Amino acid sequence: MTGFAPTPAVVALGGGHGLSVSLSALRQLTHRLTAIVTVADDGGSSGRLRAEFPILPPGDLRMALAALCGDDQVGRAWAEVLQARFPGNGTLGGHAIGNLLIAGLWQQLDDPVAGLDMVASMLHVEGRVLPMAAVPLVIEADVIGADPSRPDEVSLVVGQEAVALARGDIAAVRLRPSDPPAVPEAVAAIAEADYLILGPGSWYSSVIPHVLVPQLVEAMQQTKAKRVLTMNLVPTEDETPSYTAARHIEVLAEHAPRLRWDVVLADPSFANDPHLACFAASLGAELVVTPVQMRDGSPRHDPFLLASAYAGIMGL
Amino acid sequence: MTGFAPTPAVVALGGGHGLSVSLSALRQLTHRLTAIVTVADDGGSSGRLRAEFPILPPGDLRMALAALCGDDQVGRAWAEVLQARFPGNGTLGGHAIGNLLIAGLWQQLDDPVAGLDMVASMLHVEGRVLPMAAVPLVIEADVIGADPSRPDEVSLVVGQEAVALARGDIAAVRLRPSDPPAVPEAVAAIAEADYLILGPGSWYSSVIPHVLVPQLVEAMQQTKAKRVLTMNLVPTEDETPSYTAARHIEVLAEHAPRLRWDVVLADPSFANDPHLACFAASLGAELVVTPVQMRDGSPRHDPFLLASAYAGIMGL
Repeated sequence: MTGFAPTPAVVALGGGHGLSVSLSALRQLTHRLTAIVTVADDGGSSGRLRAEFPILPPGDLRMALAALCGDDQVGRAWAEVLQARFPGNGTLGGHAIGNLLIAGLWQQLDDPVAGLDMVASMLHVEGRVLPMAAVPLVIEADVIGADPSRPDEVSLVVGQEAVALARGDIAAVRLRPSDPPAVPEAVAAIAEADYLILGPGSWYSSVIPHVLVPQLVEAMQQTKAKRVLTMNLVPTEDETPSYTAARHIEVLAEHAPRLRWDVVLADPSFANDPHLACFAASLGAELVVTPVQMRDGSPRHDPFLLASAYAGIMGL
Repeated sequence: MTGFAPTPAVVALGGGHGLSVSLSALRQLTHRLTAIVTVADDGGSSGRLRAEFPILPPGDLRMALAALCGDDQVGRAWAEVLQARFPGNGTLGGHAIGNLLIAGLWQQLDDPVAGLDMVASMLHVEGRVLPMAAVPLVIEADVIGADPSRPDEVSLVVGQEAVALARGDIAAVRLRPSDPPAVPEAVAAIAEADYLILGPGSWYSSVIPHVLVPQLVEAMQQTKAKRVLTMNLVPTEDETPSYTAARHIEVLAEHAPRLRWDVVLADPSFANDPHLACFAASLGAELVVTPVQMRDGSPRHDPFLLASAYAGIMGL
């Protein structure tokens, strides 16, 4: 060892709870952390806001901001408030308070990134939270056997919530619009990163969408950063009920055939798939198998074990 | 002059736009500034929130916080955002963004003052903004001739918005509940103040309610602070259409007969009432007549002229 390793610049891509746990792990390793977040959600509080205003869905962005809140009383208090939801079934019931604040900021500011930076500052966030695209997205999927009475028929399913809940097998997902503009700050963060981390998360609605934004996937291909793909612990119950880990890699590659990977990180519970190392190698990646699941056996990543795994991968 | 005058501790009581201009003036003179704000509004965004949740109406509190925002880029930017309203006629349309944030904070925190302090800190407010009471209030009024076909009949009109819009003459206003608890921080601020400033504002809905909260009026009677009553420029169009300045003082005294005043501050335009000095003297007050109206003639106080008038009264 010739000295202290410099703090790496890390970009974490994903959405929902998967991205939150990824950020909770990575913030223990670096303050040079950028989250790039899916903006295709059309359910719940975000879906209601999208129905009323032509804005990005704020929910996943809010969760990422909360996961990166400052480690002080003010940061934690605001994160808790912004994550909380109004009670009841009235016009505000179920809305996350942070979603309303972000939506309100976006009514005032032309630039969605400027609004997110204001909330980040309020939460004492050290890193940065950016949307995957500058415009709201709709996910659509070709689903085989969505209607159980016609198991071989391919149907078009539109909307993230509908895709997540669709019965049958998803054959492919696409974005509407198909060529959404990325935000320049996200492209720049990828270009300047030392590590990119994609996953864990709902494979079709939080992971694959990132490689469907042309400017993002191009930046991911061109960056000198090491690319780490973090596998889920179990097949997502709704989207990929019977997928092996190898199949997860395969469908990602089907959606981004030119994207190479350096590391595939998997928990032993999901790595007992004889084809996994081979599929990882086909993307150029080394397979790293190490325990990252919660010790109580619940199907979630343990942020400390995940941090430990990333520290190993980054040589920290 | 024997040295620098110490910065006075000032409590401004009121609500709505009248309190905002009062705070805009006073913040130029002192950072030891506490706003005590009416919580009886039942119209607009606040009214919709009160209908959905059992909370204080946040609107006047939000306006007071914005008026005291830090004189820096962050404070001003947040104040502008929290004052802005969602567009359109949907479920969020018309809601002030700050009202939703404050209402959300109150869902999470038991103490309304703690929530207001968090927003104050976010806005870099130096002073403090407190509610007039710890519980939401309803204003009710006895109105003579509310029905023009029965000009002598007394009707009960319930709710601040209804009182403000009622036709006829208001004979008296009351609060429901009639003995609401004040917040201890407001009582303490009055006890420790060097100056209390009541008004300007809608006389029946923003000014008189303060003297109807027993713990507040008692604190106002007992404090050693100098009590300054700032008159409106014109009769409030809705509530007091034909009232002279002297009549304004008279109705205040009818609602708080034991409360004495040290100074009554009036613009010359509203002080050309031969009875005014006499009515002021009956409350123990010196009448100070000085121009405080906007120079363009609009019926609003000029915050700089008002600051100048207060500086004169305070010997600054």
